[in-house]
Amino acid sequence: MTTLDDLPLRDDLRGLSPYGAPQLDVSVRLNTNENSYPVPEPVVEAIGKALAAELRDLNRYPDRDAVALRADLAGYLGHRLTVDAVWAANGSNEIQQQLLQAFGGPGRTALGFTPAYSMHPLLALGTGTRWVPARRGVDFGLTADEAVTQVREHRPDVVFLCSPNNPTGTALDPAVITAVLDVAPGMVVVDEAYAEFARPGTVSALAVLPGKLRLVVTRTMSKAFGFAGGRLGYLAADPAVVAAVQLVRLPYHLSALTQAAARAALAHRDALLGTVTAIMEQRDRIVTELRRRGLRVADSDANFVLYEVGGDQAAAWQAMLTHGVLVRDVGLPGWLRVTAGTPAETDAFLAAIDRIQREGPPAPQPRPKGTA
Amino acid sequence: MTTLDDLPLRDDLRGLSPYGAPQLDVSVRLNTNENSYPVPEPVVEAIGKALAAELRDLNRYPDRDAVALRADLAGYLGHRLTVDAVWAANGSNEIQQQLLQAFGGPGRTALGFTPAYSMHPLLALGTGTRWVPARRGVDFGLTADEAVTQVREHRPDVVFLCSPNNPTGTALDPAVITAVLDVAPGMVVVDEAYAEFARPGTVSALAVLPGKLRLVVTRTMSKAFGFAGGRLGYLAADPAVVAAVQLVRLPYHLSALTQAAARAALAHRDALLGTVTAIMEQRDRIVTELRRRGLRVADSDANFVLYEVGGDQAAAWQAMLTHGVLVRDVGLPGWLRVTAGTPAETDAFLAAIDRIQREGPPAPQPRPKGTA
Repeated sequence: MTTLDDLPLRDDLRGLSPYGAPQLDVSVRLNTNENSYPVPEPVVEAIGKALAAELRDLNRYPDRDAVALRADLAGYLGHRLTVDAVWAANGSNEIQQQLLQAFGGPGRTALGFTPAYSMHPLLALGTGTRWVPARRGVDFGLTADEAVTQVREHRPDVVFLCSPNNPTGTALDPAVITAVLDVAPGMVVVDEAYAEFARPGTVSALAVLPGKLRLVVTRTMSKAFGFAGGRLGYLAADPAVVAAVQLVRLPYHLSALTQAAARAALAHRDALLGTVTAIMEQRDRIVTELRRRGLRVADSDANFVLYEVGGDQAAAWQAMLTHGVLVRDVGLPGWLRVTAGTPAETDAFLAAIDRIQREGPPAPQPRPKGTA
Repeated sequence: MTTLDDLPLRDDLRGLSPYGAPQLDVSVRLNTNENSYPVPEPVVEAIGKALAAELRDLNRYPDRDAVALRADLAGYLGHRLTVDAVWAANGSNEIQQQLLQAFGGPGRTALGFTPAYSMHPLLALGTGTRWVPARRGVDFGLTADEAVTQVREHRPDVVFLCSPNNPTGTALDPAVITAVLDVAPGMVVVDEAYAEFARPGTVSALAVLPGKLRLVVTRTMSKAFGFAGGRLGYLAADPAVVAAVQLVRLPYHLSALTQAAARAALAHRDALLGTVTAIMEQRDRIVTELRRRGLRVADSDANFVLYEVGGDQAAAWQAMLTHGVLVRDVGLPGWLRVTAGTPAETDAFLAAIDRIQREGPPAPQPRPKGTA
């Protein structure tokens, strides 16, 4: 039996494991910030119809520039964005990989404020970009001063900001974004994967986009739209940025099926986004209930909540799993992340929390392979 | 109006244009080696049904490892391949990009024998891998000696071999592959995108795969399967290679729709591949007819033919377009590539050739933007 050690693998990949939360068959899955609500029947029908219209011509390559889809995304985003200011790919991971290929890469540096989306350093690794883990402040916050100081120190070619931040959940003050833009020598990418869940009054980075050549806002349909299985991420930026990623995108990267399904989903955005308010209510309920139980919790503008378990988070993760609730161990000592889903899922989550607080953690069991 | 020059783009990308053949609305499109036959109605129905079954659960992420699809692909390939020896992605471009991320990248070198698939050097560029353009021999052939000499000279970390080669069309003797493997210090990737069209007696690199840890065979469903719009490429290799690309693949890179549609297409492979014989007949007809007209033509094991136009290929390309036939200028001075499609498309292609031979090229017209 041969192994990775027998292959001429890159040295910087040796010893790593593939990224990803365990895909376990558990009834309450609150670990990957999916939208817990299935796609409503009328939207299922509309997407099915849109897909059916593509099938006969699957022998032909799709529109390489995905123009119709990008126009629809621009229309959804508003802010007077036009098709040439929007780009789409198979998930926002691919969007951010393309940005690093165009503006990062060998000899260049990307910086993020940890804890943040754990794919960012992996995307840097995969594109040969040196990664600088900068720090967040007290209670996982990030002030303009804290951000500016570290950007000035490292002068990265690409800065990642997450708003709302994953896994902590809190949105950024746009003043932090503009302050970083003022001192960053390169591109500033604001990852707004969870923007639709932000609390009232939160301002999107899209509002500060006009005239900011080096600012990029990335979004996804995986979360609020409930379209994780469809894989559609996108960005809004100056048209020159869109031209830049087109130099590194794989030709025909977006299938005809992806383009058609995403367009149908966007056309039914009211039905799909109709779950957002209900999810925000559960998010706020989780925050309130955990605080009532004496646990520390980060403020959340997303569809998840980061909470302190009061001990080893790996053991706490396992204890929750034993009680049938899959949450996420993001590798942050003492903390776990839970997705806000349906009221029944919140019930199950809180019941498991209560049971563990009452009875103590269950007897340890072997951990599934690949958990992180 | 800002431009790319105003952005902190990587220096090695400056001045480039996005890769891709012009997507023009012409009745006879023989430029991207698509399968000219639309998907048959029973297969359309089967794919539609498979997709419909996924739609309600699109709120969930897809199987990150695409296990069922990989098992089906292994079954299709045969050669006793198992699921752990097969990997799939959004087109073979993404497969090859992942291979370069794992085995190429900064400080490493990839080598190909030009003229070959023009994405290989671009994938190297996009992954920070230094590219070495090695040379093919007389009549675009490649002997074991020619290949071995150049691999010995450059000691590349990744060697690309294409069989059948694109754009020349000829399959490789497996002896060339094993000879290269013997001297190559790194990985050897055999791009078999057109394998299903090979002339009788052609041996796939899959036959030499057992026990060859550093050999990778890549395939696509874009050509023979008529699934270009579905975007599905795959590889077969030692399971350790599959483990390696899993370190760099984007999580959930393959949508639930892609996985379901590709599985349905594979289940109906007899219907989809039923066009291959007809296409090979047109391929052989094009070779014969062009040679009868005195043109030099490369032997073809693919669904396309490279032919010498007897002059400036850019002007010849434009002349063909003026007569309603879109062929491919691959940037090879004096040569053009034409896809073998339906009998009627061959008729139109040959009629345009005859008309130009008889009347001379039509008056020049402005060339569409982005043609290469």
